[in-house]
Amino acid sequence: MSMDTSDILKGIQAGNNRAVAKAISMVENGEDEADDLLSKLDQSLLQSCMVMGVTGAPGAGKSTLTDKLIGHCRGLGKRIGVIAIDPTSPISGGSIHGDRIRMMQHALDTEVIVRSMATRGRLGGLCAAAGAVVRIMASAGCNPVIIETVGVGQSEMDIIRIADVTALVSAPGLGDDIQALKAGLLEVADVMVVNKADRPGAELLALELRDVARSKGREVIMTVASEGKGIDTLYQTLKDIFEEHQASGKNDARRIEARNMEVVDWGIELLRPFLEKWSQEGHGQEFGDPRVRARKLVESLLGRELV
Amino acid sequence: MSMDTSDILKGIQAGNNRAVAKAISMVENGEDEADDLLSKLDQSLLQSCMVMGVTGAPGAGKSTLTDKLIGHCRGLGKRIGVIAIDPTSPISGGSIHGDRIRMMQHALDTEVIVRSMATRGRLGGLCAAAGAVVRIMASAGCNPVIIETVGVGQSEMDIIRIADVTALVSAPGLGDDIQALKAGLLEVADVMVVNKADRPGAELLALELRDVARSKGREVIMTVASEGKGIDTLYQTLKDIFEEHQASGKNDARRIEARNMEVVDWGIELLRPFLEKWSQEGHGQEFGDPRVRARKLVESLLGRELV
Repeated sequence: MSMDTSDILKGIQAGNNRAVAKAISMVENGEDEADDLLSKLDQSLLQSCMVMGVTGAPGAGKSTLTDKLIGHCRGLGKRIGVIAIDPTSPISGGSIHGDRIRMMQHALDTEVIVRSMATRGRLGGLCAAAGAVVRIMASAGCNPVIIETVGVGQSEMDIIRIADVTALVSAPGLGDDIQALKAGLLEVADVMVVNKADRPGAELLALELRDVARSKGREVIMTVASEGKGIDTLYQTLKDIFEEHQASGKNDARRIEARNMEVVDWGIELLRPFLEKWSQEGHGQEFGDPRVRARKLVESLLGRELV
Repeated sequence: MSMDTSDILKGIQAGNNRAVAKAISMVENGEDEADDLLSKLDQSLLQSCMVMGVTGAPGAGKSTLTDKLIGHCRGLGKRIGVIAIDPTSPISGGSIHGDRIRMMQHALDTEVIVRSMATRGRLGGLCAAAGAVVRIMASAGCNPVIIETVGVGQSEMDIIRIADVTALVSAPGLGDDIQALKAGLLEVADVMVVNKADRPGAELLALELRDVARSKGREVIMTVASEGKGIDTLYQTLKDIFEEHQASGKNDARRIEARNMEVVDWGIELLRPFLEKWSQEGHGQEFGDPRVRARKLVESLLGRELV
């Protein structure tokens, strides 16, 4: 039995997980009806939804940490959305698969909605879709929505911009990843987490991170996710920051920017089929080089010369 | 001292490496003059240039193999272009850095032109730029041009389509990567390489691969790249396949398709600034959801309604 858009919308508003899944698939498949659906979502629920990002190097224990955060939120009686993102999607990576299996312990809990997302080489499309998935989950009453990424690359930084507050997870014994943390993700992280804090080297790592974190006004939090230690502090800290940013209007400003970036990503996804059709039909071959052909194509789309 | 386009073009035709580097930078930076330059490159050199792809799982020894292929080609008196590509570009990966250091043994050889390329999250831009870099290198007399990738993901598959012939490198002891090889890259690989063929498990791996390869009419070649073993066979096999495809017209067909895909990638890169400007200026906010805003934007660009 198929559902039409208004049925799906009603289902989302009633917190029906099947309706949520259907709506997400519509967005991921680029169905035209997705527009109608997205424009009718409850904006007030979206406004109050806390979107938490969990990112960090592979091996830092992000998955276990996310799992415990879910458990903690469930203990607080919350309905939770989880988006597990693998932007690199290596054929042999298996991380998505691992995520799915790990999440199974919440699989029978109807108050936890989990969605794994990967890209087939087009990050923009993934970022755009992830933004829409957040809005769908929020409209179904999920708060918080947790976005967990696989690695610490540029892709992760782009996706994590969707989050209102972000925890950057590290752990002792991961080698020179500390350099990576210093280099890039500190800019987008609100909290630095030293996970596996019971292991040798954790204190030293925390010291190093505090040095960096202090200059940016960030906190460092110690956790042992496998034992559930420090999860409550982490959650509360992220929540405090979120509420401060809600009050100050910082969240509003950041969300406007994230939405503007999403418009660009969606715009490209919508234009791509036209470019592909034009190109495959062999138009513009008289211009020789592909870059020159592309410029002629864009000029004809825009109705004026570039430069 | 800066060079103008016609100087750079002359430099490329004379095989001047500084001119090649300058031209590649123009393309990577999206300079307008790049069009003029690309449209004037020598098409006959491009037609005869063999573009070899080297891909496979991390740890299979692709870098050493590429290095030995370069050495082998130098022994044949050839001028070589090498493009080392890291599409994931993780902050902490360091693979590009490793490539650069490794290539240093050819750094003083003016007959080897090496370029490392990474993406900042936009694969399409990288694919497009890599295609143009191949054409610049070919016009400077490089033949073959070798494209080496870092991993075995979807990104690699997209990039490797630029290559005329592709070696998929594997090695014993890499765990369940065999599944990955079976799953995807076999479709784009012309030759399967079992590297580290002196290690335990190499024969078994070769047996498994031959099973798969036979059904696709592919060859399996054993190499010990670190000792230079099997490199001559690998090179000759790739060259034979290339020449067969040149004669049959298969290369022409494949190149037309690859160029059509490049037109799409360039088209998106050229359109992106317009989308960004429109979005950042806050246009279309009355339409609410980012996807709806994007659709309105695209409709106004195309001058007609989508759907």
